[in-house]
Order: sequence, then structure tokens, then C-alpha cells
Amino acid sequence: MATVIIPEFVPSPEQDSETLKNAFKGWGTDEKAVIRVLGQRNATQRKIITQTYQQIYNESLFDSLRSELSGDFLRAIILWTYDPPERDARLINQALKERKKGSKHLQVIVEIACASSPHHLIAVRKAYSSLFDCSLEEDIASSLQLPLRKLLVALVSSYRYDKAVVDMTVAKLEAGHLHESIKKKELDHNHIVWNIATRNFFQLRATFACYKQEYSSSIDEDILACGNGDLQALLRIAVLCIECPEKHFAEVIRKAVVGLGTDEDSLTRAIVTRAEVDMVKIKEEHVKLYNQTVEDAIIGDTSGDYKNFLLTLVGKQI
Amino acid sequence: MATVIIPEFVPSPEQDSETLKNAFKGWGTDEKAVIRVLGQRNATQRKIITQTYQQIYNESLFDSLRSELSGDFLRAIILWTYDPPERDARLINQALKERKKGSKHLQVIVEIACASSPHHLIAVRKAYSSLFDCSLEEDIASSLQLPLRKLLVALVSSYRYDKAVVDMTVAKLEAGHLHESIKKKELDHNHIVWNIATRNFFQLRATFACYKQEYSSSIDEDILACGNGDLQALLRIAVLCIECPEKHFAEVIRKAVVGLGTDEDSLTRAIVTRAEVDMVKIKEEHVKLYNQTVEDAIIGDTSGDYKNFLLTLVGKQI
Repeated sequence: MATVIIPEFVPSPEQDSETLKNAFKGWGTDEKAVIRVLGQRNATQRKIITQTYQQIYNESLFDSLRSELSGDFLRAIILWTYDPPERDARLINQALKERKKGSKHLQVIVEIACASSPHHLIAVRKAYSSLFDCSLEEDIASSLQLPLRKLLVALVSSYRYDKAVVDMTVAKLEAGHLHESIKKKELDHNHIVWNIATRNFFQLRATFACYKQEYSSSIDEDILACGNGDLQALLRIAVLCIECPEKHFAEVIRKAVVGLGTDEDSLTRAIVTRAEVDMVKIKEEHVKLYNQTVEDAIIGDTSGDYKNFLLTLVGKQI
Repeated sequence: MATVIIPEFVPSPEQDSETLKNAFKGWGTDEKAVIRVLGQRNATQRKIITQTYQQIYNESLFDSLRSELSGDFLRAIILWTYDPPERDARLINQALKERKKGSKHLQVIVEIACASSPHHLIAVRKAYSSLFDCSLEEDIASSLQLPLRKLLVALVSSYRYDKAVVDMTVAKLEAGHLHESIKKKELDHNHIVWNIATRNFFQLRATFACYKQEYSSSIDEDILACGNGDLQALLRIAVLCIECPEKHFAEVIRKAVVGLGTDEDSLTRAIVTRAEVDMVKIKEEHVKLYNQTVEDAIIGDTSGDYKNFLLTLVGKQI
């Protein structure tokens, strides 16, 4: 389901490091070579390349990238080069720093908590502790106020059961609980928070399906009808990420490019964080929903090396 | 800090398996041999022995133990032979099944959440999912009612920062928050639950010290003064386990043996779960607090193979 294209014959990490070093030499940078190397390696390969580069040249690959590249291209390639748990920990930390800008900045926390495997989320929490000298949940609890704090602490603390075990009686019962709380506009009610934060993804999808069947509108529509606060926005994203992550990320890409101007941060985040997860499905959803390919969305709104890099990640040979 | 005595020359897992198999042969069982083998191996060694035994005899070591031994001795040796995360997951599951018997049965959940390393707690959650087809927090959320649910879901969901980083300004501020909520007898207030469930152990110890300095009574005394409900009992245990686990477990052992009759379940749990963690310190605390050695406490209240096994775990050559 990943769109990243790994060549049939992958050069050794030493060769890749040398290609990168040569790309940085002299005036100007060979950006194409950087994209060719880093954009066509999986997470494990990239990790080994950064270690090997450090060993050979006694210099951090990240520092080299920062001194040679700039702008959106630099930000995208740095995010891509981080080990995924470290990348997500840094994205969350950045979001908490920009928390005052509202739910849009906190959305990434919900995405990482609700559209990752339980094991990945634990790895992110581990990376967060190593990088920022406190636990992720501690940082959220001390940075945010109620009711966002309650929802986000619960979401990032989950370690969900990861198999497709579904109890339809529970699904029906809990759909009722959810509906009751949403009807009263109590979006931080324990029923909602504990349900969304502790049940396994398969069970929750069954609950959401029961909800729709029983009450004729979908749970995310009903949440949307509750108003336009940050809690409502984040809870809806949690539901969407649990129900169908590829649909959510297709929407993120769409919103980033539609209309005048581009939201490069969101576009980069969606593509970098999902290229190795479910980008094949996201591309299908995007065409289905918006009658446009992700490639065309990228081409229409970006340019230069940044464009080439994103296209590489979504599997287009450039 | 473990009291388990591993012999200088440890037999191979094959030899240990054979010794066990021979101990089970014929009428009667050679309990001393069982104690000598399993009681003097660390967790990794025990795990390899159970795997080797299964491979050689095509039979589960647990089944053999169950058919040969009985009573408290059997229960203790089974708990000891489980891999520690599996053991703790099973203890919690049992506690949830017996939840209607009140806080005493739920105490083990708090102990595992607050007196384990963050990494061990994650391993317990992983084991819980594998064994019981649901996540630990999901099972607690659906088994218990408020306010216990709120406290216990938060405690087991933590993945605390594990280094000694302390901010004294935060400690002072949060001691104030804790005091305010305790004074109002709001023991499930967000201030208390999030503080106790997300901060690192070192930070919390500093907060508790500030509390005592500022308000002249200790936080656990003030919690005790709030009444005698289950929430109050479990919150107090959380504080004690965070502040000084060895003192808490010395108290568990004491309460299990003092007066008429013995609480074998608590005695077994304290010794089995801590023999490889901090039993050396627990023994020191026990002498300090009660002027009696843990060995004498065991000898006074137990007998036979059960006694010999517990004594072996606390480091007494028998």
C-alpha cells in the first residue's frame, strides 16, 4: 500500500552516502540526486543511510540538508528522513507549541493517535520521551486546557487491541451511548472519550455503522452539527481517522490545494506521513472524491524540487 | 536488588526440564526439586525452561505443575513461572473478575501501574491484549464504574518519562493543585488524576515532598482523612507505590500475616512480583517498620512447600 518506489538494485548505504555528499559539494546542490536517493528508500534504509553518513563524514546528514536546501523542500525532506516515530513525535511537539493557533494545528495529534497502528503510537511516545524530557501525555496535559486536554490525553494514551474482534451487542449499545451524548452536545462526555480512545478500530467501525443504521445520520455528521469549536473539529477528525484514514488524508490533501494559495505544511504532512502507509488507497480515494489524481493536485499547486520530491513519494517516476 | 539466588553454575534448560520431569514421575512429587529448579532461576531462564520442557516432552509445564501440585504452593509457583508481563496481565484480569469484592482486589492494578517501570507496563498491556482479546484500558473502562474507572484507566494508560528530571516550580504549583482538590474531597478531580497518571515518578516524589513541606501533613495522610471508599483506598495506594514501592510492599506483607489467619493471595503476590525487582529493599523496610524479618513473617504464617518456596524467593537457602 506504499507508493514509494524502491529500485530493484539498491546501492549500499556507503554508496548512497557518497552520492549525497557529492550532491552537496561545490556551489549549488544536485537536488535531483538528493531526491533520487532519499525519496526512493524505505524507513529502515533511510535510517541506515543517516547513520552511515554520520560515520563516514563525521557530520549529521540533517545538518548537511539544512545547509544546502531550503523552504518547503527542505522541510519535507527533513521530515521524510527522520525515523517515523521521531518524525511524529516532532510533529506533535511542534503542534503543541503552536496550540494557540487552534484545532488545525492540533489535528496532527489526532491523526497520529487514531490513524497509526497501536505499536507505532507506543514508538512515538517512546521517541517523545527521549527527545523532549517528558512524556507525551504529560506535555499535552500541561499544555492544553479542558476539554481538548481530556480528549487528546485519552487518545494518545491508548494501546488498542489490534485484531479484528467485534462484538455487535457492544457496538449497538455503545452507538446508543454515543448518540445520547452527541444529542446533548456533550462531546467530552466519558462515554464518547473512553469509547473512542479505548476500543479497537474494528469494534469502533462496527459501532459507527450501527450508529448510522440506527439514527440515519452518520456520527461525523452529527458531530459537525454540534457547532464549530475545536473539540468538535478534533473529535470529528478522530472519527474519520478511525473509520477510514485514507478518506481523511485524501481530504487533507484536497483542502491543502483547493482555492487560492497552498497549505504546504498540511500537504507535506499528509504525503510524508502516509507515503509508506496507505498512499495507494489515499490516491484512489482522492480520484473517487474529487475526480482528480493526487499527482495532478501536487503539480497544480507546487513547483521545483518540492514538487518533484512529493511526486516521487506518491510513486511518480520523474 | 533481587533476592532470588541464581546458582553459580546453572544447569542447561534441557537438564532443568529433565529434573522437573523426574520430580513429577511416579506417585508423589519431589517438590523440593521443583523449588530448587524454578525458584532459583531468573525470568529469562524460566521462560526458556518452559519452552524447552514443552519441546522435549510435548507437554505444557504449566499443565504438569497443575496436575502435580496444589493449593497456595501451586498458585505461587504458577504465578512465578509465567513471564512477568503475562503474570501481571493475568493478575489484573483476575482482579477485574473479582471487582465486586472491592478495592482490595483492584489494588493489584494500581501496584502494576504505579510500581513498575514504564516499559514493563507497556509489556503488560501488550500481554493483556494477546491473552484476553481486548486492551487493558478497554476492559477496565467497560468493567468498572466512575470514579474508579477514571483513575484506573488513566493509571494503566501512562507511559511515563523514565529519567530523573524534576522541575521544582511545577512540583510546588501541582502540590497546591493536589491540596486544593483533596481539601474539597474531590479525589477524582482532573488535577489529581492527570497529575498522578502522567508525571514521571521523580517529579511526583518532588511534588509529594513539596506538599508535605507546604501543608505539614503528607498527601497520603490527607487522602486517608477523606473517608474510607474504594477511590480513596486506591488513590492512596497509587501515592504510596509512587513514593516508595518497597514501603508499600512491606506493608502488604505485614497486613497479609498480622493477626489471625493469613491472606495468602496478597503474600504470594507481593513476594512473587517483587522478588526480582526490589525485595532486598522491601526486606529492609519490613525490619525497619515492624521489627521483624520477612523470613520470620513467612515462617510464622505458612508451612510446607509453600513456605519453602516463598523463603527461596526472598533469598533464604533452605
